[in-house]
Amino acid sequence: MSENANRAGRRPLILVTNDDGIESPGLHAVAEAAVAAAKGANGAGEVIVAAPTNQQTARGRSMNGNERDHFHPYEIPETNTDNRRLTAWHIDASPALVCQHALTVLCDGRTPDLVVSGINYGENIGTDIGGSGTLGAAFQAAAQGIPALALSRQTGVENHFFHGHLDWSETIRVAERWIRKILDLAPSLAAQPPGRRPFDVLKVDIPDPCPNETPERLTRLSMSRYLGFHIEKPSSRTRLGESRTYIAADAHSLDPADDGYAVAVDRVIAVTPLTIDCTASMIEAQRVLQV
Amino acid sequence: MSENANRAGRRPLILVTNDDGIESPGLHAVAEAAVAAAKGANGAGEVIVAAPTNQQTARGRSMNGNERDHFHPYEIPETNTDNRRLTAWHIDASPALVCQHALTVLCDGRTPDLVVSGINYGENIGTDIGGSGTLGAAFQAAAQGIPALALSRQTGVENHFFHGHLDWSETIRVAERWIRKILDLAPSLAAQPPGRRPFDVLKVDIPDPCPNETPERLTRLSMSRYLGFHIEKPSSRTRLGESRTYIAADAHSLDPADDGYAVAVDRVIAVTPLTIDCTASMIEAQRVLQV
Repeated sequence: MSENANRAGRRPLILVTNDDGIESPGLHAVAEAAVAAAKGANGAGEVIVAAPTNQQTARGRSMNGNERDHFHPYEIPETNTDNRRLTAWHIDASPALVCQHALTVLCDGRTPDLVVSGINYGENIGTDIGGSGTLGAAFQAAAQGIPALALSRQTGVENHFFHGHLDWSETIRVAERWIRKILDLAPSLAAQPPGRRPFDVLKVDIPDPCPNETPERLTRLSMSRYLGFHIEKPSSRTRLGESRTYIAADAHSLDPADDGYAVAVDRVIAVTPLTIDCTASMIEAQRVLQV
Repeated sequence: MSENANRAGRRPLILVTNDDGIESPGLHAVAEAAVAAAKGANGAGEVIVAAPTNQQTARGRSMNGNERDHFHPYEIPETNTDNRRLTAWHIDASPALVCQHALTVLCDGRTPDLVVSGINYGENIGTDIGGSGTLGAAFQAAAQGIPALALSRQTGVENHFFHGHLDWSETIRVAERWIRKILDLAPSLAAQPPGRRPFDVLKVDIPDPCPNETPERLTRLSMSRYLGFHIEKPSSRTRLGESRTYIAADAHSLDPADDGYAVAVDRVIAVTPLTIDCTASMIEAQRVLQV
């Protein structure tokens, strides 16, 4: 399979989205990586960027938005992005709905070869990922059979909602490598139904810092909680805003085979294959439920 | 194991939540079922109801809400609910955040034996369930190791956002039966870590109508899309509100072993065991990714 050739031999189409909003430097970083990765043997592919107008952190796979809004064009400010192959749009909606609406109205009847979501401010680890907008957008693509890549970088919790200025060069390199890899795999992935593939969503969590020689590790999703929610004196009068999110996991609570250990303890890149089929063991269920 | 006795032999504690909001007749129905089911060998258990102030359909596992709000008491109007064992609260937040906040501030340091989410207006089927607020609240409980039951009833799509007056007596019966069943299983479920249990969330979808003799069937989650999104003439100017949701699945597209076929074609009760561990096959991922 020659690099970046897709099923029909046509140039690849990549949809890039995120949860941090159209102005997020993490989105601009992954857009740059996607344009670079889409330059393949078949000539440069096409990259469409579609993101929420404002930050939509922790929206999970919510499908809500401003019913009256439509996509607005946006120019990504980075000068080293090849704008000729990049159109960017924003709309006032949750990440999964942005992804769904972009697939319907921006792709001109084509199905992208790959949806990339990220790069998120903050690692997405363990059983909390169901609340992640980055993962929500990726799973929305996966539900339609489109291979998806969800990219997140480790940051302090204080960066989840209030972004600082970070150096994105290391993560752009990681993103580009993984976009290339999944583009190459896309035809064989698409040949199998969702839930029966080696993965529907590939989750890649990048430690900070991430120098060139940082190893990659295939990991399981941690079944520990990674985030904790602390309230000083809980009562029925406690306001939602009084809850403080913190990173609850540590080397003792995490399994060394899992994503959390890889990123938080060993500081390597965690590559976690996820399936959209969350059916539990039918044999075990039959045994205890006797239906 | 005597009925409804829990680990410590104390009276069971059930947290009831939903995505349709505190005024939903589906919530009142399941609250009634929970109070009836909690009347066990150890004396009547306790039921706490915590729901969004307003309808929060399709919020997935979004964790957002009005930071300044706290829980407000509410009186469930049904006269045949035993109010002495029922306290109900509402707050302006997404279903998963309502569940999270209720676990932290309403349970007085106790961990419920079971979280019940529903009864939703509209069946929750296939790869679309990631967008369901009913399931989002249930998975939020599951992420903390609490067994969860997600209940939904089949309705037309027009009822997903605009509720009509329905007869809930049939679904209350089904709900009560399943709450009892999981309360009995709760100690053995809790003895295993999340992701390694026979199920973390049990999803029960109830056909409409559902007469007494309606069979129950253990089903897999469908990997087909159950819902479709139709836009007449898609363009970048298409507003979000122009998309029409419809039930895309039919007997030909659905697998007879799956939840969708059970509810939509055979009109039986679909009982689907779900896991919070969505790690795909590590062997297959290793083979194609070579990490």
